[in-house]
Amino acid sequence: MIQHVPSLEKLVNELAKLPGVGPKTAQRLAYHILRSRSDYNDNLRTALEAVKSCVHECPRCFSFTENDGLCHYCLDPKRTDESICVVEDPADIARIDTSGAFRGRYHVLHGTLSPLDGVGPKDIRLQPLLDRVTHEPIREIILALDADLEGDTTALYIAKQLRGLSVTAQDGSVRALRISRLAHGIPIGGDIDYMDYRTIGRALENRVEV
Amino acid sequence: MIQHVPSLEKLVNELAKLPGVGPKTAQRLAYHILRSRSDYNDNLRTALEAVKSCVHECPRCFSFTENDGLCHYCLDPKRTDESICVVEDPADIARIDTSGAFRGRYHVLHGTLSPLDGVGPKDIRLQPLLDRVTHEPIREIILALDADLEGDTTALYIAKQLRGLSVTAQDGSVRALRISRLAHGIPIGGDIDYMDYRTIGRALENRVEV
Repeated sequence: MIQHVPSLEKLVNELAKLPGVGPKTAQRLAYHILRSRSDYNDNLRTALEAVKSCVHECPRCFSFTENDGLCHYCLDPKRTDESICVVEDPADIARIDTSGAFRGRYHVLHGTLSPLDGVGPKDIRLQPLLDRVTHEPIREIILALDADLEGDTTALYIAKQLRGLSVTAQDGSVRALRISRLAHGIPIGGDIDYMDYRTIGRALENRVEV
Repeated sequence: MIQHVPSLEKLVNELAKLPGVGPKTAQRLAYHILRSRSDYNDNLRTALEAVKSCVHECPRCFSFTENDGLCHYCLDPKRTDESICVVEDPADIARIDTSGAFRGRYHVLHGTLSPLDGVGPKDIRLQPLLDRVTHEPIREIILALDADLEGDTTALYIAKQLRGLSVTAQDGSVRALRISRLAHGIPIGGDIDYMDYRTIGRALENRVEV
């Protein structure tokens, strides 16, 4: 659409590669960038450069960090090494951590199993998780994956792999490994009228005494 | 939301300044940029830099151009100097030009009058338009502004200013100036069922003999 201005056209093409950004939105964004005060362009480029040069994956849990070695969550001495929360994306960590209900370590899979999209067990960070379970004094694994088809498939597959693992404690005895998932139920503030029958079914099954 | 990764947080903040991008979308975009192949980050930065250093406004019509002097539309010898199409945004030019129905010059206002937002006649490129009408051999002005309140207000205001202008041709006689607007009506492919009564009213008023 933007004729005779190649560099503007190039920017539109690059922006249109972002998720949820179509050619029309990309054009609007490009014009906005062009018309905003020139330091916005500079700031955006600086931010992009900083993210590229500073942020990398933690070698242990694969969350994003700027630290040279392990990330903030792996280094925190106040967290227990005995439980590990498995998430799909690094963004999920912040959300779970804000709840304050978990004070263990994390492990980021960077994806879920999705055979239809060609994503198999080798495409996510599953083997490093199994290695961690073997070598670290882990007693509980919480699978905090999305409550959709891919999340369920992945959780079941990981649980099966973990059960097949022979986990020997340092004193030679076999270490018991607890594997759990997030509870299903009605969200806080949720209206029963708007819940689907499967959620209500789960909420009834897992009802809690008051 | 992204704790302990300052550069990622900075990128999210910058992206959230774009129009239509909230904090949640900005986070998704930032994670996408972080996870995509590293040359995407480079390409995006190169495109941003190119737009900043190469693109500027044409000194005559205020559309965007990479040329040193006048833009592609102002230089094109196949276009007539006698008619000028006034648009709000540079993006509108490409859309009008693609129709093939106009082969004159353009003028970009970079905005419309909007007293509620504090945008007055001095905040848009109106005076340069009046100067052009005085100094260039213009015979027709087409006001191709949006069919909303701001577009209507701006069109009426500009028409009034133009009529107050004494336009003297080179031979000393007073030059007649035609001022027109885009026609209102039912869009091609449009369903009358979904048209509002004002559009249908205009389409009836301006009906065309077949």
